[in-house]
Amino acid sequence: MDYARYDRVRAVEWTGKALKLLDQRKLPFDVEYITCESAEEVAEAIFQLVVRGAPAIGIAAAWGLVLAGKVIGEKSKQEAVPLLQLAAVKLNAARPTAVNLAWALARMQAALALAGEDWLQRLQDCAKDIEADDLAANRHMGQLGAQLIAPGSGVLTHCNTGSLATAGFGTALGVIRAGVAEQRVNRVFAGETRPWLQGARLTVWELQQDGIDATLIADAAASHLMAGGQVQWVIVGADRITANGDVANKIGTYQLAIAARHHGVKFMVVAPSSTVDMATASGSEIEIEQRDPGELLGYGGRRTVAEGIRAWNPVFDVTPASLIDAIVTEKGVIEQPNADKMRKAFGEA
Amino acid sequence: MDYARYDRVRAVEWTGKALKLLDQRKLPFDVEYITCESAEEVAEAIFQLVVRGAPAIGIAAAWGLVLAGKVIGEKSKQEAVPLLQLAAVKLNAARPTAVNLAWALARMQAALALAGEDWLQRLQDCAKDIEADDLAANRHMGQLGAQLIAPGSGVLTHCNTGSLATAGFGTALGVIRAGVAEQRVNRVFAGETRPWLQGARLTVWELQQDGIDATLIADAAASHLMAGGQVQWVIVGADRITANGDVANKIGTYQLAIAARHHGVKFMVVAPSSTVDMATASGSEIEIEQRDPGELLGYGGRRTVAEGIRAWNPVFDVTPASLIDAIVTEKGVIEQPNADKMRKAFGEA
Repeated sequence: MDYARYDRVRAVEWTGKALKLLDQRKLPFDVEYITCESAEEVAEAIFQLVVRGAPAIGIAAAWGLVLAGKVIGEKSKQEAVPLLQLAAVKLNAARPTAVNLAWALARMQAALALAGEDWLQRLQDCAKDIEADDLAANRHMGQLGAQLIAPGSGVLTHCNTGSLATAGFGTALGVIRAGVAEQRVNRVFAGETRPWLQGARLTVWELQQDGIDATLIADAAASHLMAGGQVQWVIVGADRITANGDVANKIGTYQLAIAARHHGVKFMVVAPSSTVDMATASGSEIEIEQRDPGELLGYGGRRTVAEGIRAWNPVFDVTPASLIDAIVTEKGVIEQPNADKMRKAFGEA
Repeated sequence: MDYARYDRVRAVEWTGKALKLLDQRKLPFDVEYITCESAEEVAEAIFQLVVRGAPAIGIAAAWGLVLAGKVIGEKSKQEAVPLLQLAAVKLNAARPTAVNLAWALARMQAALALAGEDWLQRLQDCAKDIEADDLAANRHMGQLGAQLIAPGSGVLTHCNTGSLATAGFGTALGVIRAGVAEQRVNRVFAGETRPWLQGARLTVWELQQDGIDATLIADAAASHLMAGGQVQWVIVGADRITANGDVANKIGTYQLAIAARHHGVKFMVVAPSSTVDMATASGSEIEIEQRDPGELLGYGGRRTVAEGIRAWNPVFDVTPASLIDAIVTEKGVIEQPNADKMRKAFGEA
C-alpha cells in the first residue's frame, strides 16, 4: 500500500511546543492552521469544530493535556496532578458523544499515574503513542476492511472519516483508500452530510488530494442511488460502539443503514478499538449531542431560513447492531455484531 | 376550515394581461415577482424554478399558452393552432418529471379543439378553470387526508407542497393545515430538502405566514426523529403517480418511505388527479430529471465544494406503491395502492 500516495493531509500536528490544527471550518477553500498553546484553547477548538472526527479529537485532547503540563511547568507531580485533572475535565466536556475523547484522556491519566517526576515527558510520550497507534490501527483496518469488498464494487460513505478525522489514512475512508488501491472499489460516492457538510467540504476534497474520484450526492439521494445498483457497501466510521454492537455516528448514518438493509447493500463500520465503549450497554444510553440550530438555518454565515424558525439539530444518531454487517477494528472483523461477539473481542467493561 | 387564516400566499397570478410569478428562488428573504408576457418567458421561468411544484407549473403553463395566444393576436383559429402547438411543445419541454405540466397543456389543447373563433377566450376560461379546480381539489384533499390522522399526531413533510406549489392551500401541506386546524396534528417537522432547500426556504416560511409552528430538520435526521416516536405520518406530494400506484416525487421521498416502513410510521401521498398518469405502467418508466450538479456544489449561493468535484443530482426519485399507506386525490383515498385500485379509481389510460 503506497501510503505516500494515498494519505496526504494531516489535521493535527505537534510542533514540540504547541498544537497545530488544520482549521476544518474553512476547508476546502482556505487551508489555514490554528496554533493552540493551552488545554483551554484545544478544548475550544474541539467545541468549535476546528478539529473534528472521533479519533482526531482524542488525539488533540491528549496533546491538550501535554499543553496543560507545559503551562504548569516545573512543578512536582503532586502539585501538577490536580491541575492536570482540571484540564482533563475541561477537555472531556468539549464534546459528549465520541468516546475516543474520554478514552484518550483516560490513557493519558493512566500514564500520569505511572510517571514519576518525569511526568511531563511521560505525557508527551503517551500522546505520541496515541497518535502513532491510531495511524497504525487505521492502516491495519484498511487492509481488513478492503478484504470484505468484492472487486468492482461501488461504495457510499458519510461524513468525513479520513486523515482529517484521525491521525492519518482514516477509518472508513482508509478502507475505501485500500479498496481503491487494490482495485476492489471502482465507484466512490460521498453524502454531503448536512448540516456541517463534512462530506461535501472535506471528504471529496481529501480524496481529490489522492487522485481518487468521488461523486458527491445529497444525503437524501442515497436510497435512489442504491436502487440503481451502484453501491455494494455503505462504509462509515463511528463515534462510540457500545457493548451490544450499536454504533453512534454522524446524523444520517442510521438512515443509510436502514436503506442499505432494504436494498441488500452491505453496511460496514470502521473504527479503532478506542471507539468501543464496553461500559455502555446499548446505543439508547449514549448522549446524543445537540448543536446550535443555527447550523441548519444557513451556511457559511449566510442565512437561508426565515427569522423565527425553529430547527432540531442532533448531530449523531444510533445504528442498531442488527443493521450492521461488519464492525472492523484493528483487532479484527466482527460480522453481524452482537453482545456475545463484542465481549469475546473486547472483554468485559 | 378558515382558509383566510390558513392560506395566505399565492405563487401564480393572472393579471388579465400577463402572468405574475412569485420568484421562489429568492424566498424567504426577498418577496419579488416576475412578470411573464410570452410562453417562452413562462417556459424559462419554469425551467429556472421561479415557479415550481407540480400543480403550480401546470397552472403556469396553461397561462403560458394563453400568453402565446395573446402574442398571436387577432388571427383565425386555423392560423393560431399550429403556433399554439409550437408554444405548447416549448412549455412542455421545460421540465420532464411532473405530469401535471403535460396534463394542463393537454386540457388546454382539448379546449382549443372545441373552440371556434373565440379560441383565445376559451383558452383563458380553461386556464382559469384549471387553477380553480386545483384550489378546490386541494381543499377537498385536505379534509380527506386529515381524517386519516389520529388526534395528537406528529407529521413530517418533505419539499414544498403548499400554496407555493399549487393554486393555493397545497396538497400534502393542505392536509397538514387541515390537520392542524382540526387539532389532529400538533407537531410539524419539515426536512430541509437539499439541494434546493424547498423545505428550509419555502415550507417553514409558508407555514409561518399561517402561524403554524414547524421544526426544520436535516433530511438525514428523519430516521432518528422517527425512532424517537415523534412522527406518526410522513405526508408528501407527488410529481407523477403511475398506473400501479408508484409515486415520483422530490429526491429523498423514497428514503423517507423506507424509513417510515421500518419504524411503523404511516406514509401518505397527496396529489390532485392531474398528477395521475395511467398511461405509464410503473415508476421505472418515469424520466427522472437530472439538474445541474452545481446545485450540490454550493449552499445558498456560496460555493462550498472544491473545484473539480463531480456531483450527481437527480431531483426526483420513485417510491414504490408497496411502501405507501394512502394516496389521497380529490376523488378519494386509496389505501395500500396497487394497479387494481388505481384502475378502479381512475379508469384505463
